[in-house]
Amino acid sequence: MRIALDAMGTDHAPAAEVAGAIGALQELDPDIEVVLVGDRSLIDAELSRYPDAPRDRLHVVHAPDRVTAADSPASVIRRKPESSIVVGLKLQKSGEAAAFVSAGSTGAVMATSMFTLRPLPGVDRPAIGTILPTSMSPCVMLDAGANVDCKPHHLLQFARLGRVYAQDVMGRPEPRVALLNIGEEPEKGDELAVEAHRLLAADETLNFVGNVEGRDIIRGVCDVVVCDGFVGNVVLKFYESVSHFIIGLLQKELKGDESGINLHDVFRFLDYTEYGGAPLLGVGGVSIICHGESPPRAIQNAVAVAAQAVRTGLVRHQAQAHSEPSQEM
Amino acid sequence: MRIALDAMGTDHAPAAEVAGAIGALQELDPDIEVVLVGDRSLIDAELSRYPDAPRDRLHVVHAPDRVTAADSPASVIRRKPESSIVVGLKLQKSGEAAAFVSAGSTGAVMATSMFTLRPLPGVDRPAIGTILPTSMSPCVMLDAGANVDCKPHHLLQFARLGRVYAQDVMGRPEPRVALLNIGEEPEKGDELAVEAHRLLAADETLNFVGNVEGRDIIRGVCDVVVCDGFVGNVVLKFYESVSHFIIGLLQKELKGDESGINLHDVFRFLDYTEYGGAPLLGVGGVSIICHGESPPRAIQNAVAVAAQAVRTGLVRHQAQAHSEPSQEM
Repeated sequence: MRIALDAMGTDHAPAAEVAGAIGALQELDPDIEVVLVGDRSLIDAELSRYPDAPRDRLHVVHAPDRVTAADSPASVIRRKPESSIVVGLKLQKSGEAAAFVSAGSTGAVMATSMFTLRPLPGVDRPAIGTILPTSMSPCVMLDAGANVDCKPHHLLQFARLGRVYAQDVMGRPEPRVALLNIGEEPEKGDELAVEAHRLLAADETLNFVGNVEGRDIIRGVCDVVVCDGFVGNVVLKFYESVSHFIIGLLQKELKGDESGINLHDVFRFLDYTEYGGAPLLGVGGVSIICHGESPPRAIQNAVAVAAQAVRTGLVRHQAQAHSEPSQEM
Repeated sequence: MRIALDAMGTDHAPAAEVAGAIGALQELDPDIEVVLVGDRSLIDAELSRYPDAPRDRLHVVHAPDRVTAADSPASVIRRKPESSIVVGLKLQKSGEAAAFVSAGSTGAVMATSMFTLRPLPGVDRPAIGTILPTSMSPCVMLDAGANVDCKPHHLLQFARLGRVYAQDVMGRPEPRVALLNIGEEPEKGDELAVEAHRLLAADETLNFVGNVEGRDIIRGVCDVVVCDGFVGNVVLKFYESVSHFIIGLLQKELKGDESGINLHDVFRFLDYTEYGGAPLLGVGGVSIICHGESPPRAIQNAVAVAAQAVRTGLVRHQAQAHSEPSQEM
């Protein structure tokens, strides 16, 4: 199985990508191959630092152009056809790769994935899933920012996409699906939430556990949380910043402390690099979006997630989950 | 100055309220008097435990009934006229008290405050302000849950209310007002955010610093954050739970540790009891809503906030801020 990896995405490209790819090849299943997509001379220079890399499973596809923050996401496919994002996604489209992983511009990866891989039939709006750490097992929240001004039936579609992702990639046989809201009762919330609750409760394919509030997420009461992309994006960014801030404060406080407490171990579950990137769900392929600051370990984990999605047939299962659109839609 | 205090609101009523009231009388300005509103026999029994309490500034007004979680908030004023919430707010209405503080049902305090104190002219929807700790000074976020499905002009009103609160109660002469959004640029976000941004930028009375994202709140980049009550409520509850969870995890980890780190000191700024409750802003009086689990210190701080609001003329200033409605409204 070949995974296309955008080698030009992180702030430390291609060093983090090359190290992450080699880590994936060394630690994951031996049937995995990685295709590094980007500036060949930069990639080769970086690869020369790893004489023991398994080069038989590590390929390079040249893509001379690079997407920057200045590029309008929607225009990338037309204006930068030679960029690592466009070239990498086309490898998947043509079947030369089974999945695509990038730490480049979220907007550009999303827009180019939509255009190249196309939304699945029955999915009006593909969504970004993000893994939120909880005190129990992590949950997947969607949408984390791809769509604002959602309609109730979009949230129903997110629920179906999230359910399949939790089953195939997170290993939850019967995922508990919840609606993010401001109260437990079905009639609570804004117009979107009230109507979405009704649709979710009526869908017999879902193990819908009802509304959850902001305080419930960390308790780990569900495997899938659905919400509008506006709320999801605010929560995601807020969570990352609060965790980061509290841990930073503690590190300062514990500096030089010999008490033996290992903050990194205690808070490993809060570390996004453990979770391997955010999948774009609802398109006809596997597209995983990583943080721009991803270290090698995050890249490696994203490759692992992509491989797991391919192996379990995530896309096929998601297509099936939408093949019989609800009457409500 | 008399502050009416609902003595029946907390989970430990009236013990927490009585202790909080006495703390306020002992530590705050000597012109403050507290009127405990609730079951007189229960209050008197609790007061008998404090022989040194300054009884000349501590009054009791009997209210035999009590609002419970089972009461529909909107019906309390009609169905439970003898409850501590209704009696306490009527003391303010009649001028026998200058402010009202309660740790009872948020919905019931809000609905009864709206009915008794009435929205200020020019304020369509009073909002709940909540104090969010940041790495710098705390900021006030509104709306924290009183209103969902807001229109852009509601967010403008929230901004004006928040500005005056930050000036009068938080001591910020020129409060930086921000809009919670999913990107910095004015065109980012959902329809509500885009239009609200335009209204906020056009209001010359505001020091509008633009959009802030979820990650910016903790950085302390603004004094006032405005958002729809749905998003605000999710963020508030999420914040409390994450802080609580991380600190709990650490306490477990540090148990028996003699390293001398005092978590309570390090994380004091995350402790809601320091901030004295959430004000209902935009009504013709001062109404402060506390957590149901408030300990005495939180009650005392809420009385302090109420007194500060009365002293600075918060309500008058908020009325002035809305006396010249923008053309946009």
